[in-house]
Amino acid sequence: MASPEIDALTQALARLPGLGPRSARRAVLHLLQKRETALAPLLRALESVNERMVQCAICGNIDTIDPCGICADPRRDGRALCVVEDVADLWALEKSRLFPGRFHVLGGRLSALEGVRPEDLAIAPLVQRVAQGGIDEVVLAMNATLEGQTTAHYIAERLEAYPVRLTQLAHGVPIGGELDYLDEGTLAQALRARRPID
Amino acid sequence: MASPEIDALTQALARLPGLGPRSARRAVLHLLQKRETALAPLLRALESVNERMVQCAICGNIDTIDPCGICADPRRDGRALCVVEDVADLWALEKSRLFPGRFHVLGGRLSALEGVRPEDLAIAPLVQRVAQGGIDEVVLAMNATLEGQTTAHYIAERLEAYPVRLTQLAHGVPIGGELDYLDEGTLAQALRARRPID
Repeated sequence: MASPEIDALTQALARLPGLGPRSARRAVLHLLQKRETALAPLLRALESVNERMVQCAICGNIDTIDPCGICADPRRDGRALCVVEDVADLWALEKSRLFPGRFHVLGGRLSALEGVRPEDLAIAPLVQRVAQGGIDEVVLAMNATLEGQTTAHYIAERLEAYPVRLTQLAHGVPIGGELDYLDEGTLAQALRARRPID
Repeated sequence: MASPEIDALTQALARLPGLGPRSARRAVLHLLQKRETALAPLLRALESVNERMVQCAICGNIDTIDPCGICADPRRDGRALCVVEDVADLWALEKSRLFPGRFHVLGGRLSALEGVRPEDLAIAPLVQRVAQGGIDEVVLAMNATLEGQTTAHYIAERLEAYPVRLTQLAHGVPIGGELDYLDEGTLAQALRARRPID
C-alpha cells in the first residue's frame, strides 16, 4: 500500500546505522502521524545541516565555519595536536574539554579487509602540518582496536623524522569497570602499566 | 563540539522510535560523512513525503491522493469494511492483498493507561459510515492485545444496532510457529477453534 514517496523515505532511513527496514518503517509511520512535532523539525534540522555544515580544510572537523571553531580559536594550544579516526572521536574528546590543543581527523582507519589504504586517509595532510613546524606533541588517539593501533603505528613511522613527541592514550581499567568483566588484553595492559598509589 | 545545527538534528532523530540519543548521534555522523549518498536522498524523501502525503478523509489511510487509492478504487468491494488500529496495520494487510474490501483506520486503541478515549479515535466516523448503509460485513482487525480486544468489543457494541455482520481475525498457531514457544493463550485459542482435517 505504501506509495513510492513512502518507500523512498523508508529506504533512506533504513540505510542509517542502527535502523533496519522494519524500524525504518515504524519511523516513517511515526513521522507521518506526527507531521508537526516529528516530521517538520527533522526536515528543518536536515535542511539546516545540509546548508550550513562544512568540513574544516585544516583538521577535517565538521562545523558551520571553515576553518572550524577549534582551528580558529587563538586560545587553543597550537603546539599539541591530537590525531583521531573520526569526527565522532573528536567530539567525544572535545565534550570532556580535557585537551587544550588542536585536532586532526583522519577520516577512518587503515584496513586491509575494507581496502582502506594510507592515501584514503588524511595522513599526507597530517605529515604536512607537522612538517610546517610549531607542533611539539602529536597524540595518536586512535581506537584501541587492531586496525586503530595499526594506523597509529603507521603514522608514528611516517612522523619519525620530525622533532615531535609522539604519545598515545593510556590503556587500563575504565572508570567504573569491573575486573571480572574485562578482557585479558585490557587487564594485561593495566597490570603492566601499574602505578604507585599516591 | 557539536554545533546547534547538529544538536537539533540529533534530537529530531533521537525522537524516532527505535533510535536513542547514542544511535541518533551515529546516524548524524553517517549523514555528515555521506552527504551525497545519505543526507541528500533522505532530505529529498522527507520533503516529498511532507509535500505530497495526505490523510484520506474517508478511511484515514495516508496516500498522495484524497480519497486514497483504496477508497477511490471502484474494483474494491464496498460491502466489506476492515477496521484497523493504525495505518501500519492497513499496510500490513494490504501487502498480502487478501482483503478485497475497504478499510477504516481508528488511529490507535482505547487505553485507560494512556488516557485514550473513544472520542480520541475515529469511531464516530466509523459508525457514520456503517449507518449510511451499503456495508454488509465489518472485520474488527484490532491487534490481539488486551487493549486491541477492548477496542474491538467497544466498537462491536456501538455497531450492534446496525444490520452488519461483525467478524474478527482468527486466532491460532502462526504459520511456522512451534507449539513449544507459543504462549498459553494462543494455544488455548488454537485448541478451542480446532477444525477437522480436510
